[in-house]
Amino acid sequence: MTLANSHDRALRDRAAAVIPGGMFGHQSTAMLPDDYPQFFSKAKGAHLWDADGNRYLDFMCAYGPNLFGYGHPDIDAAYVSQLSQGDTLTGPTELMVALAEGWVAQVEHATWAIFCKNGTDATSMALIAARAHTKRKTIIRAKGAYHGAAPWCTPRPTGALPSDRAHQILCDYNDVASLEAAVAEAGDDLAAIFAAPFKHDAFIDQAEPDLAYATRVRELCDQTGALLIVDDVRAGLRLGRDCSWARIGIQPDLSTWGKCIANGHPISMLLGSEKVRKAAASIYVTGSFWYQAAPMAAGLETLRLVQNSNYLERIQALGERLAEGLKERATAAGFGFKVSGPVQMPLFLFEDDVDLRKGFCWSSAMLARGVYVHPWHNMFMCAAMTETDIDQALNAAEESFADLKRQAPNLAPIEKMAFLAATGLR
Amino acid sequence: MTLANSHDRALRDRAAAVIPGGMFGHQSTAMLPDDYPQFFSKAKGAHLWDADGNRYLDFMCAYGPNLFGYGHPDIDAAYVSQLSQGDTLTGPTELMVALAEGWVAQVEHATWAIFCKNGTDATSMALIAARAHTKRKTIIRAKGAYHGAAPWCTPRPTGALPSDRAHQILCDYNDVASLEAAVAEAGDDLAAIFAAPFKHDAFIDQAEPDLAYATRVRELCDQTGALLIVDDVRAGLRLGRDCSWARIGIQPDLSTWGKCIANGHPISMLLGSEKVRKAAASIYVTGSFWYQAAPMAAGLETLRLVQNSNYLERIQALGERLAEGLKERATAAGFGFKVSGPVQMPLFLFEDDVDLRKGFCWSSAMLARGVYVHPWHNMFMCAAMTETDIDQALNAAEESFADLKRQAPNLAPIEKMAFLAATGLR
Repeated sequence: MTLANSHDRALRDRAAAVIPGGMFGHQSTAMLPDDYPQFFSKAKGAHLWDADGNRYLDFMCAYGPNLFGYGHPDIDAAYVSQLSQGDTLTGPTELMVALAEGWVAQVEHATWAIFCKNGTDATSMALIAARAHTKRKTIIRAKGAYHGAAPWCTPRPTGALPSDRAHQILCDYNDVASLEAAVAEAGDDLAAIFAAPFKHDAFIDQAEPDLAYATRVRELCDQTGALLIVDDVRAGLRLGRDCSWARIGIQPDLSTWGKCIANGHPISMLLGSEKVRKAAASIYVTGSFWYQAAPMAAGLETLRLVQNSNYLERIQALGERLAEGLKERATAAGFGFKVSGPVQMPLFLFEDDVDLRKGFCWSSAMLARGVYVHPWHNMFMCAAMTETDIDQALNAAEESFADLKRQAPNLAPIEKMAFLAATGLR
Repeated sequence: MTLANSHDRALRDRAAAVIPGGMFGHQSTAMLPDDYPQFFSKAKGAHLWDADGNRYLDFMCAYGPNLFGYGHPDIDAAYVSQLSQGDTLTGPTELMVALAEGWVAQVEHATWAIFCKNGTDATSMALIAARAHTKRKTIIRAKGAYHGAAPWCTPRPTGALPSDRAHQILCDYNDVASLEAAVAEAGDDLAAIFAAPFKHDAFIDQAEPDLAYATRVRELCDQTGALLIVDDVRAGLRLGRDCSWARIGIQPDLSTWGKCIANGHPISMLLGSEKVRKAAASIYVTGSFWYQAAPMAAGLETLRLVQNSNYLERIQALGERLAEGLKERATAAGFGFKVSGPVQMPLFLFEDDVDLRKGFCWSSAMLARGVYVHPWHNMFMCAAMTETDIDQALNAAEESFADLKRQAPNLAPIEKMAFLAATGLR
């Protein structure tokens, strides 16, 4: 099976002339199989069409923002209606107050909110607020955890300076000893510990947070006066209707949110506990579009759906169906294949697949069958998916495992993934 | 005259409970006269309504984003139409390519574009790209110039660390000797010189760029291999249809844009010259909503209007009419009153007004007459304004100068502006 791609190839040629490297950031396909489309044309519900009109069941969900389905009628209607009244103005509308009230009521640890645009805005504000609150400098974060693309945290620090990344200590997620060593190293200068809600690093199996680790993070923050920041930008609303660590009984001091809080409309936020309010009021953070009313209207409608629909139970059940079905079919085909992490945000990796050649082959086979999966990044379930969608994906998976079985003996090395072996990541 | 404000006051009370300090960033009214509304309800064309229904001719234009009029029918229709097709997806649409092509054709120095959300995203990327290109660290920027709200540049660095602001040298805008001293101090480590297109610092008279200064900036960059970055986030498209320094014959290596490039829809960008392309491709910069298609559709429509309308000549003529009319009326009333900067982005300051008590009184009098002016930040003209609007503003100004004349002998000190005298800024 071969997908039509002439439009995509033509767009790539044009893009190469006017965009550095042809594309930037996490939506560049440079690190995906060559047959993955770079450009898309439309989306509806759980489906996505590429620039050549090929239709996919989309398990990336825009890397998270699509929670209730692309083009959700109520959410988009709220956006468009507010746009016709006023959007980017000389000041905010009452929607900002209503949205802050809504989130403060929704998230147990929060008593205040600041809205922004990028997830990185939220994590950077959390860092700044923690340093302002504690008047200390050092932060601890886990190796391999993604907290954004600013110089202090970007995973590819070309152009960033050592000074941009000063006063940081890295620990191993879920490793209490390494956490304690980092806290000891910070001495009396610890401002904050960043925590991903679960281990969702790229390229390796995901892991749920260990309760002993999470509990120790909270204890160490309480003992030292440092702040606990849970970075829920990627996972927020997919694991629960409160901050993701509330599930395991741990309340942070600050939490960061984005991606799906307005189902793809551009808004992110920092939520905070009462004790950080004063520091949060002392920092200067802003952006030209942070006061936009239309994304806030969409955010209010999204919050209403969070509260009044079974979206969460639905994506859990669909995720379970997908994960179980994939495992069965992989086993039947004789593959060691791991579905890791929460089923709502699964990652698929083959065992014994250092340069991902099996993963690339199987993912391409899925793509050719109209199912968009990612070979090394976690995926996202959305509430617009149906059991029929999942079953079709499982049928595609069964055929793709068979394809892989035929091709496995002759798979070529994946040059662009050679770094994985070189760095020992896999 | 007193404006109704009960809704605004009620919203402020609610906001104080759920937003640190009641509001954050540049749209907080904490530093404005007490009668300025914090919350707005709608906007159309050149006019804005506050939460109590008071209508204003808005000379802030959302702090810049409103260039063609609030709720511009063609631009918003482009947004809504694209939203119904697809907006935040698993990858970009062809609109990104078309928009990059459009801007590369429009801006003389540019051969590539990277799109982002905040103005600060664009200026921070420029910084990172310049350091990646030169493999050097030091940047020079002018004291008091605003380049965003990240730790490296925020004007109120609470929570930022000295290390966040390392490797920076400040010079005085339009002062060649101070520029040369800064370059000498940077030695062989100069990565970039940031330049505002004109001096648009808050609280003090604005100033056009001195040609000798701008020429010397370019020469020093060429001699040292450093990059010249023109930060057009605030001024872009209001001074010209190309980069603002193209007006004076100076081409930068990088330029940063935002605010009005999609007439209030959320998109900003970094444009670059060919020699920086490789470095730009080497940095990792991204955001959840950077690939949004709807703001790009709005951006294409805005660019079409930039190319095919007389908006620029219109805002220049309207700005001229406003500036001349204000000067006449101020002089007639016996006030030393300065309209500084380009007439499309004027700043109004009274002479002999250290704590802005005259400015606050006059601005409040304007507000009460339905004209929203800012007492210490530059304003913005938009193409939806008419000669009748300007004439009404001038009538309001005449009455407001008369009000001020009556009240001037008894004006109370403005406590929140006392820092201006303390810092020697005025």
